[in-house]
Amino acid sequence: MTTKLLHLHIENGVANITFNNPPVNVLSGSLMKSLKEVLHGLSNDVKVIVFDSANPDFFIAHVDINILDEQEVLNELQLTAPEGLNIFQAVGEMLRNLPQVTIVKLKGIARGGGAEFVTAADMSFASLEKGKLAQCEALMGIIPGGGATQYLPAKMTRGRALEIMLGADLFDAATAAHYGWINRALPDAEIDAFVDQLAQNMAALEEGIISTTKKVLAAGFKAENDGWAALAFTPRTAEIMKKAMENGAQTVAGELEIESLLRSIK
Amino acid sequence: MTTKLLHLHIENGVANITFNNPPVNVLSGSLMKSLKEVLHGLSNDVKVIVFDSANPDFFIAHVDINILDEQEVLNELQLTAPEGLNIFQAVGEMLRNLPQVTIVKLKGIARGGGAEFVTAADMSFASLEKGKLAQCEALMGIIPGGGATQYLPAKMTRGRALEIMLGADLFDAATAAHYGWINRALPDAEIDAFVDQLAQNMAALEEGIISTTKKVLAAGFKAENDGWAALAFTPRTAEIMKKAMENGAQTVAGELEIESLLRSIK
Amino acid sequence: MTTKLLHLHIENGVANITFNNPPVNVLSGSLMKSLKEVLHGLSNDVKVIVFDSANPDFFIAHVDINILDEQEVLNELQLTAPEGLNIFQAVGEMLRNLPQVTIVKLKGIARGGGAEFVTAADMSFASLEKGKLAQCEALMGIIPGGGATQYLPAKMTRGRALEIMLGADLFDAATAAHYGWINRALPDAEIDAFVDQLAQNMAALEEGIISTTKKVLAAGFKAENDGWAALAFTPRTAEIMKKAMENGAQTVAGELEIESLLRSIK
Repeated sequence: MTTKLLHLHIENGVANITFNNPPVNVLSGSLMKSLKEVLHGLSNDVKVIVFDSANPDFFIAHVDINILDEQEVLNELQLTAPEGLNIFQAVGEMLRNLPQVTIVKLKGIARGGGAEFVTAADMSFASLEKGKLAQCEALMGIIPGGGATQYLPAKMTRGRALEIMLGADLFDAATAAHYGWINRALPDAEIDAFVDQLAQNMAALEEGIISTTKKVLAAGFKAENDGWAALAFTPRTAEIMKKAMENGAQTVAGELEIESLLRSIK
Repeated sequence: MTTKLLHLHIENGVANITFNNPPVNVLSGSLMKSLKEVLHGLSNDVKVIVFDSANPDFFIAHVDINILDEQEVLNELQLTAPEGLNIFQAVGEMLRNLPQVTIVKLKGIARGGGAEFVTAADMSFASLEKGKLAQCEALMGIIPGGGATQYLPAKMTRGRALEIMLGADLFDAATAAHYGWINRALPDAEIDAFVDQLAQNMAALEEGIISTTKKVLAAGFKAENDGWAALAFTPRTAEIMKKAMENGAQTVAGELEIESLLRSIK
Repeated sequence: MTTKLLHLHIENGVANITFNNPPVNVLSGSLMKSLKEVLHGLSNDVKVIVFDSANPDFFIAHVDINILDEQEVLNELQLTAPEGLNIFQAVGEMLRNLPQVTIVKLKGIARGGGAEFVTAADMSFASLEKGKLAQCEALMGIIPGGGATQYLPAKMTRGRALEIMLGADLFDAATAAHYGWINRALPDAEIDAFVDQLAQNMAALEEGIISTTKKVLAAGFKAENDGWAALAFTPRTAEIMKKAMENGAQTVAGELEIESLLRSIK
């Protein structure tokens, strides 16, 4: 489903969602609504979701300053938001709780609610030259209200989270990666290939691995063991292990390149 | 209030507190007492507190080895310490719980209780050439007792916190920044300008932003939403948003430099 | 105790344990059993344990794909594992709960359960040129089952932990250090000297410092204070403080090199 505000393209289990809300991709109520509908409409065949922007300068500028004009949409979003979350927080938590893995490819500026979107996504990769992030709310007389005060201190030190939110400056991608705000900063010439390869590799994983990993992450040793055990004793896993051994696993030559060996198993 | 042991200078909402306890700035009972009095005496007009040292080599050497000679002061500090904290832990928690944002500008050596002071502060910036940190307690037959065993593993991996406390070596600023011990390591020639600008930017924020951000940080989505909502619907915020739109917010040109645009709103 | 699968060498309070399970050092049931026996047999004189590998290419390849053939050993390991942990998780928790500090010196590849061993150890140092890490379980149709889903998100951001586990690629040591997976990546020519010096420095610490630090780490201010107080008022600590003052502590010259000064106290 492609809407006026975002474009959806699905190929080989990877959904690419491109924001397109000119002139600067503000996060409006309508865009949040479209996003929610598109994400909830994805089939189970989609394993990976990559977000990018049709705008060369901006990923998402920030929440639309005129968002209160969309009262009807806001009411609808709040009514369907999970208990205890406002509509902005609900966007970030949606990205984290999807069975798919969510990736932001950041090749422009993301501030405020746009930066929170990047922070909430499961993974984020930014162009060294063009990716920029800011929590600029303090300059607008407010504090972040869409998760930044919770996500940032979980990703980096308390001091750096405070520097970002109270200093309110625009951060380049290298500093953002150094602080842990994003996964990696990559040369602009390499970021597309890097994210494409990663997305394809993850989309090729066996059923259940992505959703189970997201579910058991930091949920305790019992959750890990249960998630592991549910996958470890299936016929398909036994088949993979058997073929791996036949193809050279546990020999020096096979183990040096075990990733290729395992990925070639059909 | 300036005392023999520390110098206080206030300008434009920024309080600069300079430690001066020759020859090496040990953290004595008297210095802790002076610090507490100065901090509690600050007016609400002060939004940012920057700590530095009058000593070219040392920020704070460590807790005074002869501190037990100051029994009367220690008793007084313990009587007024928050429940459950010893007098050294109380210093760090005081820095974190002030309504102001606390910054250390580290241009010398801080070890032991001095390093814990740096670690506890809301933010810390160190001179690449001169800033050094160590938890050297292990070499004195003890473990850190002023918060390092709690603050360090919250700022960095468990393994790096153990390396610092058990290896007990002096860390340069670059490694400290890499480990997350401090916010940033900056060239000595740039650190004053960087910290001054950051402090002035934060002191210029609207009332309530600094204290609310510190309060809701990592305190849950409801706390964030409550803090945000208390600031989002004030007349002043409406005025800022209106002026921002008039000045070019949500246009490409305006958004490319939105920080300047917002900071110029009176 | 040296076994067929690992070599133990003890000198000056440092135990060196070298894995040797050709051809690629898989983590078999027998190796886990040997490891457990060797670790539990260490005397209290051992303060530091350094793990390395006799194999030039592999630290630990991963869990033995044929491990189910060792049913008797697995049953024994499970019967003696702490409540709530599977046998793989029990290995990592054992490393963390020993009174000694555990260090991995990584000069080869560690994947899967081998990478979890590195992650679980108290500290880890990797050769920049040769140290490599991967959680490759996703390529085998499973998820990590030996602690990675819990340890990784405690060491780094959620997004990077997901990238490691779902991307399932082999990470070089520099990226691993950047992500916080290991303490440091060091040039191969320097890693032995670095780890040896660190191990010797820690083995020379007074009784109780290593175990107390591990115990109180992130366990709250009261635990820290109790651990500190138990060491701060002993005759030996008083003696160290007295000698430190006699040797120049709290003078500029003495404090500039206080680590050497303190380490020279007998």
